[in-house]
Amino acid sequence: MAKDKKTPRPKAETPKGFRDYFGAEVTERAEMLAKIAAVYHRYGFDALETSAVETVEALGKFLPDVDRPNEGVFAWQEFDEKDRGDWLALRYDLTAPLARVYAQHRNDLPTPYRRYAMGPVWRNEKPGPGRFRQFYQCDADTVGAASVAADAEICAMLADVFEDLGLAGDYVVKVNNRKVLNGVMEVAGVLDPADPEKFARERGIVLRAIDKLDRLGAQGVRALLGEGRKDESGDFTKGAGLSDEQAEVVMGFVSANDFVRKSLFNSIGTSPREADYLRRGAAAQGNRPKSSEVTQREDFGSVWNVSVLEHLAGLVRGSEVGGNGVNELKQIAELLEAQGYSSDRIVIDPSVVRGLGYYTGPVFEAELTFEITDEDGRPRQFGSVAGGGRYDDLVKRFTGQEVPATGISIGVDRLLAALRAKGRIGGQAATGPVVVTVMDRERMAEYMGMVAELRSAGIRAELYLGNPKNFGNQLKYADKRGSPVAVIAGADEAARGVVQIKDLILGAEIARNASLEEWKDRPSQYEVPRADLVARVRAILDGQGSDGPRG
Amino acid sequence: MAKDKKTPRPKAETPKGFRDYFGAEVTERAEMLAKIAAVYHRYGFDALETSAVETVEALGKFLPDVDRPNEGVFAWQEFDEKDRGDWLALRYDLTAPLARVYAQHRNDLPTPYRRYAMGPVWRNEKPGPGRFRQFYQCDADTVGAASVAADAEICAMLADVFEDLGLAGDYVVKVNNRKVLNGVMEVAGVLDPADPEKFARERGIVLRAIDKLDRLGAQGVRALLGEGRKDESGDFTKGAGLSDEQAEVVMGFVSANDFVRKSLFNSIGTSPREADYLRRGAAAQGNRPKSSEVTQREDFGSVWNVSVLEHLAGLVRGSEVGGNGVNELKQIAELLEAQGYSSDRIVIDPSVVRGLGYYTGPVFEAELTFEITDEDGRPRQFGSVAGGGRYDDLVKRFTGQEVPATGISIGVDRLLAALRAKGRIGGQAATGPVVVTVMDRERMAEYMGMVAELRSAGIRAELYLGNPKNFGNQLKYADKRGSPVAVIAGADEAARGVVQIKDLILGAEIARNASLEEWKDRPSQYEVPRADLVARVRAILDGQGSDGPRG
Repeated sequence: MAKDKKTPRPKAETPKGFRDYFGAEVTERAEMLAKIAAVYHRYGFDALETSAVETVEALGKFLPDVDRPNEGVFAWQEFDEKDRGDWLALRYDLTAPLARVYAQHRNDLPTPYRRYAMGPVWRNEKPGPGRFRQFYQCDADTVGAASVAADAEICAMLADVFEDLGLAGDYVVKVNNRKVLNGVMEVAGVLDPADPEKFARERGIVLRAIDKLDRLGAQGVRALLGEGRKDESGDFTKGAGLSDEQAEVVMGFVSANDFVRKSLFNSIGTSPREADYLRRGAAAQGNRPKSSEVTQREDFGSVWNVSVLEHLAGLVRGSEVGGNGVNELKQIAELLEAQGYSSDRIVIDPSVVRGLGYYTGPVFEAELTFEITDEDGRPRQFGSVAGGGRYDDLVKRFTGQEVPATGISIGVDRLLAALRAKGRIGGQAATGPVVVTVMDRERMAEYMGMVAELRSAGIRAELYLGNPKNFGNQLKYADKRGSPVAVIAGADEAARGVVQIKDLILGAEIARNASLEEWKDRPSQYEVPRADLVARVRAILDGQGSDGPRG
Repeated sequence: MAKDKKTPRPKAETPKGFRDYFGAEVTERAEMLAKIAAVYHRYGFDALETSAVETVEALGKFLPDVDRPNEGVFAWQEFDEKDRGDWLALRYDLTAPLARVYAQHRNDLPTPYRRYAMGPVWRNEKPGPGRFRQFYQCDADTVGAASVAADAEICAMLADVFEDLGLAGDYVVKVNNRKVLNGVMEVAGVLDPADPEKFARERGIVLRAIDKLDRLGAQGVRALLGEGRKDESGDFTKGAGLSDEQAEVVMGFVSANDFVRKSLFNSIGTSPREADYLRRGAAAQGNRPKSSEVTQREDFGSVWNVSVLEHLAGLVRGSEVGGNGVNELKQIAELLEAQGYSSDRIVIDPSVVRGLGYYTGPVFEAELTFEITDEDGRPRQFGSVAGGGRYDDLVKRFTGQEVPATGISIGVDRLLAALRAKGRIGGQAATGPVVVTVMDRERMAEYMGMVAELRSAGIRAELYLGNPKNFGNQLKYADKRGSPVAVIAGADEAARGVVQIKDLILGAEIARNASLEEWKDRPSQYEVPRADLVARVRAILDGQGSDGPRG
């Protein structure tokens, strides 16, 4: 350590864009992931954990962030004594590693292979407030199943995840199909199937325009499909250059929900409230519109999905791929209906497109429908917490053979924030430990014995291990730890065979309400026989849990 | 995808030295870590999760593997549009990030700060069979507590971890103190405290020699302390160059266990079996030597530790640091004794030195004492699964102020292997799902309904999602999945309102024992009313769990 003076001290900082997670942040996430894993397991999905590091070659380049170093991944080149080796990188999602695993182990894995995975992924993004370069994903995918029953299963499983997390009535799983959009563009004459590169490029422009529906509204999207759009600041974004006629066909798809709402009103008199209920999902009985002729219909739960499918079938008439797409959506809706998932929980929604380029069929998006207050104090819907879809080409990169696959990825941090907002997690009673204080340094063994007794009884407890000289510091420490109870035993207590037990929750209560006479009768500190230590602490903890308010 | 023909296909391989973990490998580890976390939590330790990526500067260089690229870590340099930035690296352990976290957040954290952390770490080691470059660690540390009560607590907690994992009687936690070794070397005249660099270098040579006690025995270590040692292949390793007199003093420390064994026999007539029991740890009652005058002694549980401490006190007489070290060990032993941890579970053992350079006081090592059979068919003790100690300088790197700290790191993969060897994990009944087979493609909704019913009843179940044409493939799939039950329902069954339930465990049993007459009366396939599906599957699963052997 003689060198300490020469070398400057290292900075105690995380790298930019990374952060630490403390205490409940860690355990609540673990609790949530365990509940999700239980649902996945019930559905027959098996756990898979790949390493954080993959070869760049195996990962492929699927991130949209092409302007960043290494196209958005953290990468480095191996080298040993002699030469440079493979380029390695941190995984940027859990899907690319799955494709590699399935290609590598396909002879040993069952087919179809259902797997779930949960863990951190890394993105070499520009760090910004609230944007982190390491975050958790929680995925479930089925590889090797071409049937849309696999897509339906993913949707049902996602709904069950929300139900098991206590979010019944607060979510909707939206389903769309890329094939329908392709069909719409074919009908509109936007796409030229004969030229695949032009096809992909033009489809991309239209996809990106539609993906902005939430933010820009129908008018904004319409502008982007045509000449272009000037935003509030006056900046102009060039459009896709569709003719008015073409743009109208695409808008019939984008605004399908509005068309269906109107047509339902015209045909069976559905009120706006009823239509909204049908479309946005509200499993909670309380949200269901009051009994009317419409809500009495036996097919009420499925009427929305049926109407959307009719509308879409009309839009893609004449396109084979479009017809297939509508047919797949119809099958998915029917399979889900048979299991009791109506359109109040899983709904066909043409406004969902999902950004990622590799989807080839059905796409999914799960939204939480309850309202929160945004930074500007305005109420808004919580929004998307999961997304996914069918991707039939990822394994083909490795093997040359097309392997159908479909899956979902849950945004762990957003879902956790939602559970906290709804009070569905972390709201339990005191998690701080009982603190046994140190009055006499030479009686440490005795104090440790007390702590050991408490722990043996399953009570979280610790001995104060700082410098015991200043007793006030010990109580400040207990406060910082959120301790429910402190134990105090000096020489005097030892001589008399007793200990002092201080109810810190009640104590804080009394301190806050010091003026009230009634508190006088409720002391927050008790002297109890040493032998009763565990029983009395247990009694205080039980009392705090049942009726004692937490500070 | 027109480019597919031009670009070569990527190899579907993990990078060298990395691997994938499937199914039970993932869930059993998670189960074990959850049990360990519960013990840590009961002791008042809080969870901490740092990111995988740290700056190289913050991590520091503490790995012994200095010959590897970047001294054994995976590292790369950040860069953005303009310039190169910080060097980043994957963490190589959980201790270096803790030091960074404590230095960064010390004003917000309680002091002492007890934290636990579990997760992967990365080492840029030469890959080899069974050596992986990503592996799990599971640590608990107390930062800011100078008292040896913190060290004692770590030892007690480690013992509780093994007890809660079902390893009572199969472990021993060994404790030593670097200060005692320093004292011994001071007495022997090996160390020159006036020259810190020479001090550190010479201590390092002696440490490495002692660390080989397990492998080379006392004679081998003795040779390495002196001139050097020729191994079986004839290769010569240069020694530390100690004089005979110096080496004898050090050997008095290294072989302290033998000295104590002899002195116990001389003083109170302890038999070798009794001494071994006292030293090696065997909490299981069955291992305790039969009642004798010696085992009847009231201080039987502590006699070994007391004797070792006496022996050590004699060795370091005249050295202040050595005396302090013995005194600390004595306090640790007494604190543990007071909580009921005798030397059959936690034992003072001078042969433990631990390789890492940064330990400054007490060091710990936990061993599992049951025997396994090694690759050559020979029985050997399972060995070390955890290690740690006191390190008072790691936070100082950042802040300039010395912050006392102590902790333990559990080798997750080794402990998991031990639990599997002892049948303490993963031995439960069938985890494979019930498979509902597909007889008619057009009745998928019906089959999905069956699966949904089974899942709603908490039964793990799945629909066969592959190509249903070949029914044999469906049963092969069920076999590969380890399914306990298959459900079969064709048009005929549907018409009659029944389903076929096939007990696959019993079926396999019958197939294996086809010649036995008795099986004839036990059909493995039942026809049951559709309405009874869930109840009958449940009954079969319960039967398999209670008496049905697993294939």
